[in-house]
Amino acid sequence: MAKLPAQLQNVALFFERLPGIGAKTANRLAFYLLRMPEQDLKLFAESIAQLKSSTKKCKICLNLTETDTCNICADLQRDKTRVTVVEDVLDLLSFEQGNIYDGIYHVLHGKIDPLNHVGPDDIYISPLIERIRAKSTNGSAVREVILATNPDMEGEATAMYIRNQLQELKEKHNLTFTITRLAYGLPMGANLEYADYMTLGKALENRNAF
Amino acid sequence: MAKLPAQLQNVALFFERLPGIGAKTANRLAFYLLRMPEQDLKLFAESIAQLKSSTKKCKICLNLTETDTCNICADLQRDKTRVTVVEDVLDLLSFEQGNIYDGIYHVLHGKIDPLNHVGPDDIYISPLIERIRAKSTNGSAVREVILATNPDMEGEATAMYIRNQLQELKEKHNLTFTITRLAYGLPMGANLEYADYMTLGKALENRNAF
Repeated sequence: MAKLPAQLQNVALFFERLPGIGAKTANRLAFYLLRMPEQDLKLFAESIAQLKSSTKKCKICLNLTETDTCNICADLQRDKTRVTVVEDVLDLLSFEQGNIYDGIYHVLHGKIDPLNHVGPDDIYISPLIERIRAKSTNGSAVREVILATNPDMEGEATAMYIRNQLQELKEKHNLTFTITRLAYGLPMGANLEYADYMTLGKALENRNAF
Repeated sequence: MAKLPAQLQNVALFFERLPGIGAKTANRLAFYLLRMPEQDLKLFAESIAQLKSSTKKCKICLNLTETDTCNICADLQRDKTRVTVVEDVLDLLSFEQGNIYDGIYHVLHGKIDPLNHVGPDDIYISPLIERIRAKSTNGSAVREVILATNPDMEGEATAMYIRNQLQELKEKHNLTFTITRLAYGLPMGANLEYADYMTLGKALENRNAF
Protein backbone atom coordinates (compact mmCIF):
# COMPACT_ATOMS: atom_id res chain seq x y z
CA MET A 1 0.00 0.00 0.00
CA ALA A 2 1.28 3.44 -0.91
CA LYS A 3 2.48 5.44 2.05
CA LEU A 4 0.32 8.41 2.88
CA PRO A 5 1.94 11.59 4.22
CA ALA A 6 2.63 11.02 7.93
CA GLN A 7 0.16 13.47 9.45
CA LEU A 8 -2.60 12.34 7.11
CA GLN A 9 -1.87 8.75 8.11
CA ASN A 10 -1.89 9.71 11.82
CA VAL A 11 -5.23 11.44 11.52
CA ALA A 12 -6.74 8.51 9.60
CA LEU A 13 -5.41 5.97 12.11
CA PHE A 14 -6.85 7.95 14.98
CA PHE A 15 -10.25 8.19 13.32
CA GLU A 16 -10.14 4.43 12.86
CA ARG A 17 -9.92 3.98 16.63
CA LEU A 18 -13.26 5.71 17.13
CA PRO A 19 -16.40 3.58 17.44
CA GLY A 20 -18.25 2.87 14.19
CA ILE A 21 -15.46 4.16 11.92
CA GLY A 22 -13.67 1.65 9.70
CA ALA A 23 -10.48 2.02 7.66
CA LYS A 24 -12.19 3.35 4.52
CA THR A 25 -14.30 5.90 6.40
CA ALA A 26 -11.28 6.96 8.43
CA ASN A 27 -9.34 7.68 5.23
CA ARG A 28 -12.26 9.54 3.75
CA LEU A 29 -12.60 11.72 6.86
CA ALA A 30 -8.88 12.49 6.93
CA PHE A 31 -8.98 13.56 3.27
CA TYR A 32 -12.05 15.61 3.99
CA LEU A 33 -10.23 17.49 6.76
CA LEU A 34 -7.49 18.28 4.27
CA ARG A 35 -9.98 20.34 2.29
CA MET A 36 -11.23 22.35 5.25
CA PRO A 37 -9.94 25.83 6.11
CA GLU A 38 -6.66 25.80 8.01
CA GLN A 39 -8.17 28.06 10.67
CA ASP A 40 -10.99 25.60 11.44
CA LEU A 41 -8.54 22.74 11.78
CA LYS A 42 -6.45 24.74 14.24
CA LEU A 43 -9.52 25.45 16.37
CA PHE A 44 -10.56 21.79 16.25
CA ALA A 45 -7.06 20.72 17.25
CA GLU A 46 -7.12 23.15 20.17
CA SER A 47 -10.51 21.91 21.40
CA ILE A 48 -9.28 18.33 21.30
CA ALA A 49 -6.05 19.11 23.11
CA GLN A 50 -7.95 20.89 25.88
CA LEU A 51 -10.89 18.51 25.96
CA LYS A 52 -9.98 16.50 29.01
CA SER A 53 -8.39 19.23 31.09
CA SER A 54 -11.28 21.65 30.59
CA THR A 55 -14.02 19.12 31.31
CA LYS A 56 -14.77 17.88 34.82
CA LYS A 57 -17.53 16.13 36.70
CA CYS A 58 -20.10 18.15 38.63
CA LYS A 59 -19.37 17.64 42.33
CA ILE A 60 -23.07 17.09 43.03
CA CYS A 61 -24.49 14.99 40.19
CA LEU A 62 -21.37 13.98 38.19
CA ASN A 63 -22.72 15.55 34.99
CA LEU A 64 -19.91 16.97 32.83
CA THR A 65 -19.19 20.64 33.37
CA GLU A 66 -16.50 23.30 33.12
CA THR A 67 -17.16 24.62 36.61
CA ASP A 68 -17.46 22.85 39.97
CA THR A 69 -21.22 22.56 39.78
CA CYS A 70 -23.09 21.87 36.55
CA ASN A 71 -25.69 24.32 35.29
CA ILE A 72 -28.53 21.94 36.13
CA CYS A 73 -27.56 21.59 39.79
CA ALA A 74 -26.89 25.34 39.95
CA ASP A 75 -30.33 26.16 38.49
CA LEU A 76 -32.57 27.49 41.28
CA GLN A 77 -35.71 26.80 39.22
CA ARG A 78 -35.23 23.05 39.22
CA ASP A 79 -37.02 20.72 41.59
CA LYS A 80 -34.26 19.43 43.88
CA THR A 81 -36.54 16.85 45.52
CA ARG A 82 -36.53 14.57 42.48
CA VAL A 83 -33.36 12.81 41.32
CA THR A 84 -33.20 10.86 38.06
CA VAL A 85 -30.42 8.28 37.86
CA VAL A 86 -28.95 7.83 34.36
CA GLU A 87 -26.12 5.71 32.99
CA ASP A 88 -24.29 8.48 31.22
CA VAL A 89 -24.36 12.10 30.15
CA LEU A 90 -25.82 11.36 26.71
CA ASP A 91 -28.87 9.88 28.45
CA LEU A 92 -29.16 13.04 30.53
CA LEU A 93 -29.06 15.09 27.32
CA SER A 94 -31.94 13.03 25.92
CA PHE A 95 -34.08 14.09 28.87
CA GLU A 96 -32.98 17.70 28.58
CA GLN A 97 -33.69 18.17 24.92
CA GLY A 98 -37.46 17.75 25.31
CA ASN A 99 -38.18 20.04 28.24
CA ILE A 100 -40.00 17.08 29.84
CA TYR A 101 -38.29 17.03 33.22
CA ASP A 102 -37.41 19.74 35.73
CA GLY A 103 -35.77 17.72 38.50
CA ILE A 104 -32.08 16.99 38.94
CA TYR A 105 -29.90 14.03 37.97
CA HIS A 106 -27.29 11.59 39.09
CA VAL A 107 -24.92 10.24 36.44
CA LEU A 108 -23.55 6.74 37.10
CA HIS A 109 -20.98 6.86 34.28
CA GLY A 110 -21.58 3.22 33.44
CA LYS A 111 -23.73 0.24 34.30
CA ILE A 112 -23.17 -2.98 36.21
CA ASP A 113 -21.84 -5.36 33.57
CA PRO A 114 -20.21 -8.49 35.04
CA LEU A 115 -19.24 -9.89 31.62
CA ASN A 116 -17.05 -6.82 31.08
CA HIS A 117 -15.82 -6.83 34.68
CA VAL A 118 -17.77 -3.75 35.73
CA GLY A 119 -19.09 -4.22 39.27
CA PRO A 120 -21.20 -1.90 41.47
CA ASP A 121 -18.05 -0.30 42.87
CA ASP A 122 -16.73 0.63 39.43
CA ILE A 123 -19.54 3.09 38.76
CA TYR A 124 -20.88 5.97 40.84
CA ILE A 125 -23.48 4.09 42.90
CA SER A 126 -22.14 4.71 46.40
CA PRO A 127 -21.88 8.48 45.79
CA LEU A 128 -25.58 8.32 44.87
CA ILE A 129 -26.54 6.50 48.07
CA GLU A 130 -24.41 8.85 50.14
CA ARG A 131 -25.90 11.85 48.34
CA ILE A 132 -29.48 10.71 49.01
CA ARG A 133 -28.59 9.94 52.62
CA ALA A 134 -26.98 13.34 53.20
CA LYS A 135 -29.83 15.19 51.46
CA SER A 136 -32.54 13.29 53.37
CA THR A 137 -30.96 13.54 56.79
CA ASN A 138 -29.99 17.21 56.63
CA GLY A 139 -33.52 18.35 55.91
CA SER A 140 -33.49 19.08 52.12
CA ALA A 141 -35.98 16.32 51.41
CA VAL A 142 -35.80 13.87 48.54
CA ARG A 143 -39.28 12.83 47.45
CA GLU A 144 -38.47 10.55 44.54
CA VAL A 145 -35.57 8.73 42.95
CA ILE A 146 -36.32 7.82 39.30
CA LEU A 147 -34.22 4.95 37.99
CA ALA A 148 -33.64 5.71 34.30
CA THR A 149 -31.02 3.15 33.32
CA ASN A 150 -31.50 1.55 29.90
CA PRO A 151 -34.11 -1.19 29.44
CA ASP A 152 -31.53 -3.88 28.68
CA MET A 153 -30.05 -6.63 30.81
CA GLU A 154 -27.26 -4.58 32.38
CA GLY A 155 -29.47 -1.53 32.86
CA GLU A 156 -32.09 -3.69 34.62
CA ALA A 157 -29.47 -5.24 36.88
CA THR A 158 -28.11 -1.82 37.74
CA ALA A 159 -31.58 -0.48 38.52
CA MET A 160 -32.32 -3.47 40.71
CA TYR A 161 -29.07 -3.16 42.59
CA ILE A 162 -29.65 0.53 43.25
CA ARG A 163 -33.27 -0.13 44.30
CA ASN A 164 -32.06 -2.61 46.93
CA GLN A 165 -29.44 -0.19 48.23
CA LEU A 166 -32.01 2.61 48.45
CA GLN A 167 -34.50 0.34 50.23
CA GLU A 168 -31.90 -0.47 52.81
CA LEU A 169 -31.15 3.22 53.25
CA LYS A 170 -34.87 3.99 53.67
CA GLU A 171 -35.32 1.36 56.34
CA LYS A 172 -32.16 2.28 58.19
CA HIS A 173 -32.96 6.00 58.41
CA ASN A 174 -36.73 5.69 58.28
CA LEU A 175 -37.00 7.77 55.08
CA THR A 176 -40.11 8.10 52.94
CA PHE A 177 -39.00 8.91 49.37
CA THR A 178 -40.40 6.77 46.56
CA ILE A 179 -38.28 4.77 44.10
CA THR A 180 -39.63 4.60 40.55
CA ARG A 181 -38.54 3.14 37.21
CA LEU A 182 -39.28 4.49 33.72
CA ALA A 183 -42.34 2.88 32.08
CA TYR A 184 -42.05 0.14 29.49
CA GLY A 185 -44.43 0.16 26.56
CA LEU A 186 -44.80 0.96 22.88
CA PRO A 187 -42.69 3.86 21.66
CA MET A 188 -44.70 6.78 20.26
CA GLY A 189 -45.38 6.43 16.54
CA ALA A 190 -44.74 2.68 16.70
CA ASN A 191 -46.52 0.17 14.51
CA LEU A 192 -48.00 -2.84 16.35
CA GLU A 193 -47.24 -5.01 13.34
CA TYR A 194 -43.51 -4.51 13.85
CA ALA A 195 -43.40 -4.40 17.66
CA ASP A 196 -41.38 -7.16 19.33
CA TYR A 197 -43.37 -9.42 21.64
CA MET A 198 -41.41 -8.40 24.75
CA THR A 199 -42.33 -4.76 24.31
CA LEU A 200 -45.88 -5.67 23.39
CA GLY A 201 -46.13 -7.88 26.47
CA LYS A 202 -44.97 -5.02 28.68
CA ALA A 203 -47.39 -2.63 27.00
CA LEU A 204 -50.24 -5.04 27.70
CA GLU A 205 -49.17 -5.68 31.28
CA ASN A 206 -48.89 -1.96 32.03
CA ARG A 207 -52.07 -0.89 30.24
CA ASN A 208 -53.89 2.13 31.65
CA ALA A 209 -57.53 3.09 32.15
CA PHE A 210 -58.63 5.22 29.20
CA MET B 1 -31.06 21.51 25.75
CA ALA B 2 -28.50 21.35 28.54
CA LYS B 3 -25.28 23.14 27.76
CA LEU B 4 -22.28 20.88 27.30
CA PRO B 5 -18.84 22.06 28.43
CA ALA B 6 -17.51 24.39 25.71
CA GLN B 7 -14.66 22.28 24.35
CA LEU B 8 -16.82 19.16 24.29
CA GLN B 9 -19.44 21.14 22.38
CA ASN B 10 -16.79 22.45 19.96
CA VAL B 11 -15.46 18.98 19.26
CA ALA B 12 -18.98 17.60 18.73
CA LEU B 13 -19.94 20.46 16.41
CA PHE B 14 -16.82 19.93 14.35
CA PHE B 15 -17.47 16.19 14.02
CA GLU B 16 -20.97 17.05 12.85
CA ARG B 17 -19.50 18.96 9.90
CA LEU B 18 -17.79 15.82 8.60
CA PRO B 19 -19.54 13.77 5.92
CA GLY B 20 -21.78 10.96 7.18
CA ILE B 21 -21.74 12.10 10.81
CA GLY B 22 -25.00 13.37 12.32
CA ALA B 23 -25.64 15.16 15.60
CA LYS B 24 -26.05 12.00 17.72
CA THR B 25 -22.94 10.32 16.33
CA ALA B 26 -20.97 13.55 16.72
CA ASN B 27 -21.90 13.68 20.42
CA ARG B 28 -21.04 10.03 20.87
CA LEU B 29 -17.62 10.52 19.26
CA ALA B 30 -16.87 13.59 21.39
CA PHE B 31 -17.74 11.67 24.57
CA TYR B 32 -15.62 8.78 23.37
CA LEU B 33 -12.61 11.08 22.96
CA LEU B 34 -13.11 12.21 26.54
CA ARG B 35 -12.34 8.67 27.69
CA MET B 36 -9.14 8.34 25.65
CA PRO B 37 -5.67 8.93 27.12
CA GLU B 38 -4.71 12.61 27.28
CA GLN B 39 -1.46 11.86 25.46
CA ASP B 40 -3.26 10.35 22.46
CA LEU B 41 -5.54 13.36 22.21
CA LYS B 42 -2.57 15.72 22.22
CA LEU B 43 -0.95 13.77 19.38
CA PHE B 44 -4.20 13.73 17.42
CA ALA B 45 -4.60 17.48 17.92
CA GLU B 46 -1.05 18.05 16.70
CA SER B 47 -1.57 15.94 13.59
CA ILE B 48 -4.71 17.86 12.74
CA ALA B 49 -3.10 21.24 13.30
CA GLN B 50 -0.20 20.33 11.01
CA LEU B 51 -2.26 18.38 8.50
CA LYS B 52 -2.48 20.96 5.77
CA SER B 53 0.94 22.54 6.12
CA SER B 54 2.76 19.19 6.12
CA THR B 55 0.89 17.76 3.14
CA LYS B 56 1.55 18.90 -0.43
CA LYS B 57 0.92 17.71 -3.96
CA CYS B 58 3.60 15.75 -5.82
CA LYS B 59 4.97 18.06 -8.51
CA ILE B 60 4.81 15.25 -11.07
CA CYS B 61 1.56 13.35 -10.49
CA LEU B 62 -0.26 15.51 -7.88
CA ASN B 63 -0.49 12.60 -5.43
CA LEU B 64 -0.30 13.80 -1.81
CA THR B 65 3.16 13.72 -0.30
CA GLU B 66 5.38 15.29 2.34
CA THR B 67 8.26 15.84 -0.08
CA ASP B 68 8.38 17.42 -3.54
CA THR B 69 7.98 14.13 -5.37
CA CYS B 70 5.74 11.32 -4.10
CA ASN B 71 7.21 7.91 -3.36
CA ILE B 72 5.53 6.38 -6.41
CA CYS B 73 7.05 8.85 -8.86
CA ALA B 74 10.39 8.54 -7.07
CA ASP B 75 10.34 4.72 -7.27
CA LEU B 76 12.83 3.60 -9.94
CA GLN B 77 11.16 0.17 -10.19
CA ARG B 78 7.91 1.54 -11.56
CA ASP B 79 7.03 1.54 -15.23
CA LYS B 80 7.08 5.22 -16.17
CA THR B 81 5.62 4.58 -19.62
CA ARG B 82 2.13 3.91 -18.28
CA VAL B 83 0.08 6.62 -16.62
CA THR B 84 -3.22 5.91 -14.88
CA VAL B 85 -5.52 8.90 -14.47
CA VAL B 86 -7.62 8.83 -11.29
CA GLU B 87 -10.10 11.28 -9.76
CA ASP B 88 -8.52 11.43 -6.35
CA VAL B 89 -5.92 10.03 -4.01
CA LEU B 90 -8.28 7.49 -2.42
CA ASP B 91 -8.75 5.92 -5.86
CA LEU B 92 -4.98 5.74 -6.24
CA LEU B 93 -4.80 3.99 -2.87
CA SER B 94 -7.32 1.39 -4.08
CA PHE B 95 -4.97 0.48 -6.93
CA GLU B 96 -1.97 0.41 -4.64
CA GLN B 97 -3.40 -1.88 -2.00
CA GLY B 98 -3.62 -4.90 -4.29
CA ASN B 99 -0.18 -4.88 -5.91
CA ILE B 100 -1.99 -5.05 -9.27
CA TYR B 101 -0.33 -2.13 -11.04
CA ASP B 102 3.27 -1.01 -11.37
CA GLY B 103 2.90 2.10 -13.54
CA ILE B 104 2.55 5.70 -12.37
CA TYR B 105 -0.46 7.96 -11.84
CA HIS B 106 -1.98 11.31 -12.47
CA VAL B 107 -4.43 12.62 -9.86
CA LEU B 108 -7.12 14.97 -11.20
CA HIS B 109 -8.37 16.03 -7.74
CA GLY B 110 -11.97 16.05 -8.93
CA LYS B 111 -14.17 15.30 -11.89
CA ILE B 112 -16.00 17.41 -14.45
CA ASP B 113 -19.36 18.06 -12.81
CA PRO B 114 -21.32 20.89 -14.47
CA LEU B 115 -24.21 20.67 -12.00
CA ASN B 116 -21.79 21.58 -9.21
CA HIS B 117 -20.00 24.16 -11.36
CA VAL B 118 -16.83 22.11 -11.80
CA GLY B 119 -15.50 22.54 -15.33
CA PRO B 120 -12.43 21.04 -17.05
CA ASP B 121 -10.30 23.97 -15.91
CA ASP B 122 -11.17 23.45 -12.24
CA ILE B 123 -9.41 20.09 -12.04
CA TYR B 124 -5.89 19.07 -13.07
CA ILE B 125 -6.55 18.13 -16.71
CA SER B 126 -4.27 20.60 -18.46
CA PRO B 127 -1.28 19.63 -16.26
CA LEU B 128 -1.94 16.05 -17.43
CA ILE B 129 -1.95 17.01 -21.10
CA GLU B 130 1.16 19.13 -20.65
CA ARG B 131 2.87 16.33 -18.73
CA ILE B 132 2.14 13.77 -21.45
CA ARG B 133 3.27 16.24 -24.11
CA ALA B 134 6.53 17.01 -22.31
CA LYS B 135 7.25 13.34 -21.59
CA SER B 136 6.50 12.25 -25.15
CA THR B 137 8.44 14.98 -26.89
CA ASN B 138 11.57 14.83 -24.73
CA GLY B 139 12.14 11.15 -25.42
CA SER B 140 10.86 9.43 -22.21
CA ALA B 141 8.08 7.67 -24.07
CA VAL B 142 4.52 7.24 -22.84
CA ARG B 143 3.04 4.01 -24.15
CA GLU B 144 -0.37 4.08 -22.50
CA VAL B 145 -2.70 6.42 -20.67
CA ILE B 146 -5.29 4.48 -18.64
CA LEU B 147 -8.40 6.47 -17.83
CA ALA B 148 -9.56 5.25 -14.42
CA THR B 149 -12.23 7.77 -13.50
CA ASN B 150 -15.31 6.34 -11.78
CA PRO B 151 -17.96 4.56 -13.86
CA ASP B 152 -20.62 7.18 -13.19
CA MET B 153 -21.94 10.05 -15.26
CA GLU B 154 -19.34 12.63 -14.23
CA GLY B 155 -16.50 10.13 -14.36
CA GLU B 156 -17.54 9.13 -17.88
CA ALA B 157 -17.74 12.75 -19.01
CA THR B 158 -14.32 13.44 -17.52
CA ALA B 159 -12.81 10.38 -19.25
CA MET B 160 -14.34 11.40 -22.56
CA TYR B 161 -13.10 14.97 -22.28
CA ILE B 162 -9.56 13.79 -21.50
CA ARG B 163 -9.67 11.26 -24.34
CA ASN B 164 -10.51 14.01 -26.80
CA GLN B 165 -7.73 16.24 -25.49
CA LEU B 166 -5.23 13.39 -25.72
CA GLN B 167 -6.35 12.51 -29.26
CA GLU B 168 -5.74 16.09 -30.31
CA LEU B 169 -2.30 15.97 -28.71
CA LYS B 170 -1.49 12.70 -30.47
CA GLU B 171 -2.45 14.08 -33.85
CA LYS B 172 -0.68 17.38 -33.37
CA HIS B 173 2.65 15.83 -32.32
CA ASN B 174 2.23 12.56 -34.18
CA LEU B 175 2.45 10.46 -30.99
CA THR B 176 1.63 6.76 -30.73
CA PHE B 177 0.57 6.06 -27.13
CA THR B 178 -2.70 4.20 -26.60
CA ILE B 179 -5.61 5.51 -24.55
CA THR B 180 -7.54 2.91 -22.56
CA ARG B 181 -10.43 2.83 -20.12
CA LEU B 182 -11.02 0.40 -17.23
CA ALA B 183 -13.27 -2.56 -18.16
CA TYR B 184 -16.93 -2.68 -17.21
CA GLY B 185 -18.42 -5.99 -16.13
CA LEU B 186 -19.53 -8.04 -13.17
CA PRO B 187 -17.58 -7.44 -9.99
CA MET B 188 -15.77 -10.52 -8.65
CA GLY B 189 -17.93 -12.55 -6.31
CA ALA B 190 -21.10 -11.00 -7.70
CA ASN B 191 -24.39 -12.83 -7.96
CA LEU B 192 -26.11 -12.60 -11.35
CA GLU B 193 -29.47 -12.64 -9.60
CA TYR B 194 -28.71 -9.30 -7.97
CA ALA B 195 -26.73 -7.65 -10.78
CA ASP B 196 -28.28 -4.49 -12.24
CA TYR B 197 -29.11 -4.68 -15.94
CA MET B 198 -26.65 -1.93 -16.91
CA THR B 199 -23.73 -3.86 -15.49
CA LEU B 200 -25.04 -7.12 -16.90
CA GLY B 201 -25.44 -5.46 -20.31
CA LYS B 202 -21.84 -4.27 -20.22
CA ALA B 203 -20.64 -7.71 -19.10
CA LEU B 204 -22.44 -9.28 -22.05
CA GLU B 205 -21.20 -6.67 -24.51
CA ASN B 206 -17.58 -7.08 -23.38
CA ARG B 207 -17.62 -10.89 -23.13
CA ASN B 208 -14.33 -12.67 -23.81
CA ALA B 209 -13.31 -15.89 -25.53
CA PHE B 210 -12.98 -18.60 -22.88
